[in-house]
Amino acid sequence: MGPAPARVIHHPARTLDAGDGQKLPPEFALQVPGDYIEVLGTAVPGAIKDAGVDPADIVGIGIDATSATVFFTDADGNALCERDEFKNNPHAYIKLWKHHGAQDQADRLVKAAQDRNEEWLPRYGGVLSSELLLPKALEVFEKAPEVYEETEYIVNLLDWVTWKLTGVRAYSAGDSGYKRMYQDGEYPSKDYLESVAPGFGDVFEEKMAGPILPLGAKVGGLTDEMAELTGLKAGTAVAAGNIDAHVVVAGANAVRPGQLTAILGTSSCYVINGEDFKEVPGTFGIVDGGAVDGYWGFEGGQTAVGDIFGWFTDNCVPAEYAQKAARRGISLHDFLVAKAADQEVGEHGLVALDWHNGNRSILADARLSGLMIGQTLTTTPEDQYRALLEATAFGARVIIENFEKHGVEVEEIVAAGGLLKNAFYMQLMSDITRRPISVSEAEQTGALGSAVFAAVAAGIYEDVFKAADAMSNVRKQAYTPDEDRAAKYDALYEIYLELHDQFGRNENSPMYRLKDIKAKAFESSK
Amino acid sequence: MGPAPARVIHHPARTLDAGDGQKLPPEFALQVPGDYIEVLGTAVPGAIKDAGVDPADIVGIGIDATSATVFFTDADGNALCERDEFKNNPHAYIKLWKHHGAQDQADRLVKAAQDRNEEWLPRYGGVLSSELLLPKALEVFEKAPEVYEETEYIVNLLDWVTWKLTGVRAYSAGDSGYKRMYQDGEYPSKDYLESVAPGFGDVFEEKMAGPILPLGAKVGGLTDEMAELTGLKAGTAVAAGNIDAHVVVAGANAVRPGQLTAILGTSSCYVINGEDFKEVPGTFGIVDGGAVDGYWGFEGGQTAVGDIFGWFTDNCVPAEYAQKAARRGISLHDFLVAKAADQEVGEHGLVALDWHNGNRSILADARLSGLMIGQTLTTTPEDQYRALLEATAFGARVIIENFEKHGVEVEEIVAAGGLLKNAFYMQLMSDITRRPISVSEAEQTGALGSAVFAAVAAGIYEDVFKAADAMSNVRKQAYTPDEDRAAKYDALYEIYLELHDQFGRNENSPMYRLKDIKAKAFESSK
Repeated sequence: MGPAPARVIHHPARTLDAGDGQKLPPEFALQVPGDYIEVLGTAVPGAIKDAGVDPADIVGIGIDATSATVFFTDADGNALCERDEFKNNPHAYIKLWKHHGAQDQADRLVKAAQDRNEEWLPRYGGVLSSELLLPKALEVFEKAPEVYEETEYIVNLLDWVTWKLTGVRAYSAGDSGYKRMYQDGEYPSKDYLESVAPGFGDVFEEKMAGPILPLGAKVGGLTDEMAELTGLKAGTAVAAGNIDAHVVVAGANAVRPGQLTAILGTSSCYVINGEDFKEVPGTFGIVDGGAVDGYWGFEGGQTAVGDIFGWFTDNCVPAEYAQKAARRGISLHDFLVAKAADQEVGEHGLVALDWHNGNRSILADARLSGLMIGQTLTTTPEDQYRALLEATAFGARVIIENFEKHGVEVEEIVAAGGLLKNAFYMQLMSDITRRPISVSEAEQTGALGSAVFAAVAAGIYEDVFKAADAMSNVRKQAYTPDEDRAAKYDALYEIYLELHDQFGRNENSPMYRLKDIKAKAFESSK
Repeated sequence: MGPAPARVIHHPARTLDAGDGQKLPPEFALQVPGDYIEVLGTAVPGAIKDAGVDPADIVGIGIDATSATVFFTDADGNALCERDEFKNNPHAYIKLWKHHGAQDQADRLVKAAQDRNEEWLPRYGGVLSSELLLPKALEVFEKAPEVYEETEYIVNLLDWVTWKLTGVRAYSAGDSGYKRMYQDGEYPSKDYLESVAPGFGDVFEEKMAGPILPLGAKVGGLTDEMAELTGLKAGTAVAAGNIDAHVVVAGANAVRPGQLTAILGTSSCYVINGEDFKEVPGTFGIVDGGAVDGYWGFEGGQTAVGDIFGWFTDNCVPAEYAQKAARRGISLHDFLVAKAADQEVGEHGLVALDWHNGNRSILADARLSGLMIGQTLTTTPEDQYRALLEATAFGARVIIENFEKHGVEVEEIVAAGGLLKNAFYMQLMSDITRRPISVSEAEQTGALGSAVFAAVAAGIYEDVFKAADAMSNVRKQAYTPDEDRAAKYDALYEIYLELHDQFGRNENSPMYRLKDIKAKAFESSK
């Protein structure tokens, strides 16, 4: 076994103008496949060299990647943009996850699924992001039928990479469930797809036929060509790919029911495994074998966590604070935490909502926005900052309570991500959720997670559970709730919940109207 | 007639420890009378000299002062603190308007008035500030009976000054109505006062017997002694005193029904005259002849206006903005206005409540606090600043609409005060209230107002209306509402009103609970 980084590609590929230099619409985000191959040929040998390991000791390769980065290829997996006839056609390029050109298609796909009461829709919280594979495929079908016609296969990036590495085209179960609407052994029906766009009904059957492999399964062995490119042994086992956020579950060894993996960064992602299927409204992904084979994976999240704190320090903290922080050689974040940390719970008299980027779980509503109440003429920047930290932990508690209310128990939080360095936030989250928090000590928990799947695919461990036990590095119960503080936070949480429902479960929410007013004002200011 | 400043005393007298150097409780704010005499002997001759006028040409003296600054005196008007026996007794000193030692007394006075359905209570919005004369008198009665016993007269500062100047003790009608609960020719009844504190029932009869003079009336002529001290002619007419905010009504010539005087500074005060008595709930002073003799004066206000903007620039604006403002040599206020001014109405997507220091009108509730909704990750400091400016104008509109709803018409706003220099705010207030705003061009509109009353008392003008017409300097309709913007503000105001009622007219308002939580947390942090 080699070090984890050798197995993971996180290279940010370029987004490009099409071949003739045409300017792309702002919502477009495209890539070229060559970048991924190039990075396999440079980053992998580089990592092997840096680690000082013998490539002969590397027995498995695990892949995680941004999901819903979609390729339109020929029979051999070559993206159609590489053909001369399509080099000026934007729809022949890779549609990066953050390509937002298919909003209209996503809206229509949801509408039709609602009209037909499609059973799989609630498993995605009743909404489909325009980032998913299906809207992007429909976009090509409608906007570039010539490309669609020539497309032999539509594949997401993580499956494309394992295809390239092994010569075997297969679809990963986790990604298929979360991003390709594969549920209970079936894709959305032909009738449904035809109702959205006549002629589109065969998209899964015609363009995505192929096996769906459970997480931890071996796709195949490394080809000679790829062995030469990467410097690894030909035949090395390549595991089925996984979504970059979900791979953290295995890396943090939070693979068992009751363990909530919390990936805390600019936004947050919460993944938990359960024995049985439960309908959990407001969860945006419920997939059998979605995170670990053998359990149902449930996913929720917040659209902004660290992003809110970053917005605050960039926009809402006075010069005096910036100067003092600089003089002490610490970040504004640390300076604010130092000033807020000694407060009694509730001393600032504030409650905020953490919806500055909308709400993903459990309201699934992008029209929602931020709120703060309780300001006085003596409210300080650290008061407001702390209130925002608390708001995001309250938001996490809402998600946890929603899981539990619908039968998915949450006994422990296992955390990974950039926010772990904010120990004050971690303690506050433990107090507010009344849950112990274990933390992954790996520098790259995602990379470690991919390595876990690689080890299973290589047969080193019998299953993901044994592999994660052996390979992960978790500080158990790094934070435990303080009951005194927890009880005091309850009083603030009660207010948070009232505001949550009042502004978030209200057809006439002023937040909706504000968004409309804002959009109209923006229109007329142009 | 000499220049206005010669007639007005705005000297901030010292607040003192008592004679033996004892430390006073934090809510105490005391003064010594000597400071006022000293300032009469220095500021008045100085102003005459600076103005270059012949004192012989000065025919009248008008006095305005902070109201509810209370003196406990002997028969000659000497404050009892000047007696050796009382020099160490804090209750023998002048209780400055912002002395807050009588909160318990104020609470009990309100409670008893509620229990007895005292008819005068609604004229004060159902509450009595601890700053008023009556709670302060009761405080002395209860806390220092030896001082109370020796007190011949209790007088507010403005009446004390005219007494000193003329040797004639009289009470001004405006101040008596607003600050001494004198309504419909009567003080609160003996029965009521006895029900609060046995033995206190005679306080008005015994300690405040004396004539009540209408505004514009002459109290008497300047005594020889005071003529010598001030450098003015003996016998010069001294007008009945007036409250420092209310005197602006005459200075801005907003003396007629339909004209709302808006005194806009750190907080705001709105005074309007009406032909008839109207019960206007949420107004904190309704007094016959309260601002101008012959009309009912109605008063409302906001506890914080400029204070909110100051709080924001001090606490919520990043270093980058401070640096850019400094580089351009302008204040942060001006910098923020410059950035926000070009926005379309509603473009920032925010609505705020202006309750950072509680709400005076029309909710009369100090437990309320600030609120802002609509923040996103792209919300800028100028967005928030503009939302706060709009919130205070929305607050003014609520007060205006409340006046009109209860039969007091508001046709025009006549503004004075420090906020006039913010032309953007003034235009915004005109748009939001859909009222033209005239502005007083006098540098000290209050001083000019006192001069108006002096001129009337001296017989130069027949009444305050003629005097104000002749002496005031008002730019009529300096701001007029733009109907396009006004209509767009309506959509934001609708949201403001919803939030206003939801958080301000709600027995279970989270703001109340937050205040309680905050107070408890503060207690346990000590």
